[in-house]
Amino acid sequence: MSLLVVGSVAFDSVETPFGKAEEAIGGSAMFFSTSASYFTKVQLVAVIGEDFPQEEVDFLCSRDIDCEGLHRVSGKTFRWEGKYGFDLNEAITLDTQLNVFGDFHPELPQSYRDAEIVFLANIDPDLQMEVLEQVKNPRLVVADTMNFWIDGKLDALERVLSRVDMLVINEGEARKLAGEANMVKAARAIQAKGPKHLVIKRGEYGALLFSGDDVFFAPAYPLESVFDPTGAGDTFAGGLLGYLASCETIDTAALRQATVVGCVMASFCVEDFSLNALRKLEPGAIAERFKLFEKLVNFGPLQSLD
Amino acid sequence: MSLLVVGSVAFDSVETPFGKAEEAIGGSAMFFSTSASYFTKVQLVAVIGEDFPQEEVDFLCSRDIDCEGLHRVSGKTFRWEGKYGFDLNEAITLDTQLNVFGDFHPELPQSYRDAEIVFLANIDPDLQMEVLEQVKNPRLVVADTMNFWIDGKLDALERVLSRVDMLVINEGEARKLAGEANMVKAARAIQAKGPKHLVIKRGEYGALLFSGDDVFFAPAYPLESVFDPTGAGDTFAGGLLGYLASCETIDTAALRQATVVGCVMASFCVEDFSLNALRKLEPGAIAERFKLFEKLVNFGPLQSLD
Repeated sequence: MSLLVVGSVAFDSVETPFGKAEEAIGGSAMFFSTSASYFTKVQLVAVIGEDFPQEEVDFLCSRDIDCEGLHRVSGKTFRWEGKYGFDLNEAITLDTQLNVFGDFHPELPQSYRDAEIVFLANIDPDLQMEVLEQVKNPRLVVADTMNFWIDGKLDALERVLSRVDMLVINEGEARKLAGEANMVKAARAIQAKGPKHLVIKRGEYGALLFSGDDVFFAPAYPLESVFDPTGAGDTFAGGLLGYLASCETIDTAALRQATVVGCVMASFCVEDFSLNALRKLEPGAIAERFKLFEKLVNFGPLQSLD
Repeated sequence: MSLLVVGSVAFDSVETPFGKAEEAIGGSAMFFSTSASYFTKVQLVAVIGEDFPQEEVDFLCSRDIDCEGLHRVSGKTFRWEGKYGFDLNEAITLDTQLNVFGDFHPELPQSYRDAEIVFLANIDPDLQMEVLEQVKNPRLVVADTMNFWIDGKLDALERVLSRVDMLVINEGEARKLAGEANMVKAARAIQAKGPKHLVIKRGEYGALLFSGDDVFFAPAYPLESVFDPTGAGDTFAGGLLGYLASCETIDTAALRQATVVGCVMASFCVEDFSLNALRKLEPGAIAERFKLFEKLVNFGPLQSLD
């Protein structure tokens, strides 16, 4: 199935307890499409400024990512600066410079409008809606969002939610969106807003998939070297939807496997700064880590029950 | 295998966002032994005051828990008062009255000294050591501990750790004990202090088992109604060790299953105040929930990898 992503391309300056990266390549669309490219062909919509290196565009092309929708305009590329404490679970934003992203209005090339799976990365819900007006008949529409839009643009966000099949969201944001601390109740409340499928990202605790009435608990791999969680959520979504796009049907089994693939890809992402760990992955390494995930959660049937 | 527990019996006064319990039956040894009693015969060592209801002792006997080591002395029973916020992950202690527990020195009846599995619940490490001096040749010694002892009695705690086979501990306490934020590195550091097996309790995120080099990720069941997490950790340990005691051998497979059984028993515990949910469990309900845990984490092999 064809997979379309609309999101950001950025320079990230990140500080973690383990080091620093200055103006490293980032942005939701970069992480998502690089991750998904290991499973399927991706169509990318985003905006970059004059300062974005051509070699990074060439890298995307080398991963067979369609960059017809990647527009270069005059001005500077979006910049984000943040830092993480020891727990690495939450980023503290130090600075955001929207630059060319401030005037971004996604324009889909004609060849993108038949996309079967559409991922609306974490951008203004009004822009997400603009994308939905341009796609013809997608089989699966998936959105991400964040506190900033839940707080500031809830009406627009709820209009988007009423039109998406799946929401991929952080745990804390899910609780906030639902106004409910209990995760199961929060999931039911969010599903009632539109998305049949809900994927809750929980960082080092893995992910939960609520799909209709089905509940799936995906693990995260306990890693000895976590350097930088930046982009892990988009890398997760890229693995999830890239894998789904490579499946013949989108059923419960495929959704569960896809959630684990998302966790697998995120586990690579956090092992280095920026996209570094994702650039050079061998498909064999992905399959190998997937097997580690199988081993991680495997337990046999009860031997006795007195 | 025979299973011995040394811990507390208490009255707990607990407030959660979902209600209140005043002077309800609690204490590590109560939760542990009730939970373990579904799998094996338990030998209990604890102290109670004159105010502890005889019907609760009768309840323990009705669960085939050996109460020869449950000493009633003059004075009042240990009391704990605490409350939880909406996330239910951390208790805030409002008041502790040690009462008869203040002078507690565990004395093992002769018939207990051959116990094959020994659980040292979260008590003063000096008392934990007193127990170890009284048991003859246990096959598996397991301890719990908490921040209070890590801060205040680290030397005594480390002496205990050098003599235990397994430590069962909360995630935040594991990080504190190891002085290391990364969970894998923290686990290795704790294992280096003595315990070959380490079980990390993560509340609604399940549990991690580090057993030698083996790592196992056990899920928690996403529950719609969580009323009171008090005792969940001891209930978990009771399921874990009760199940292990019922197995023929303690190998990696048994340890993984036992960790899930611990999560299963904890999932019942939190659905009601005090011991209420644990008093009336049918073995069928335990097996049924274990199957739900299997379904919760089940995912097939990769369908494709492009």
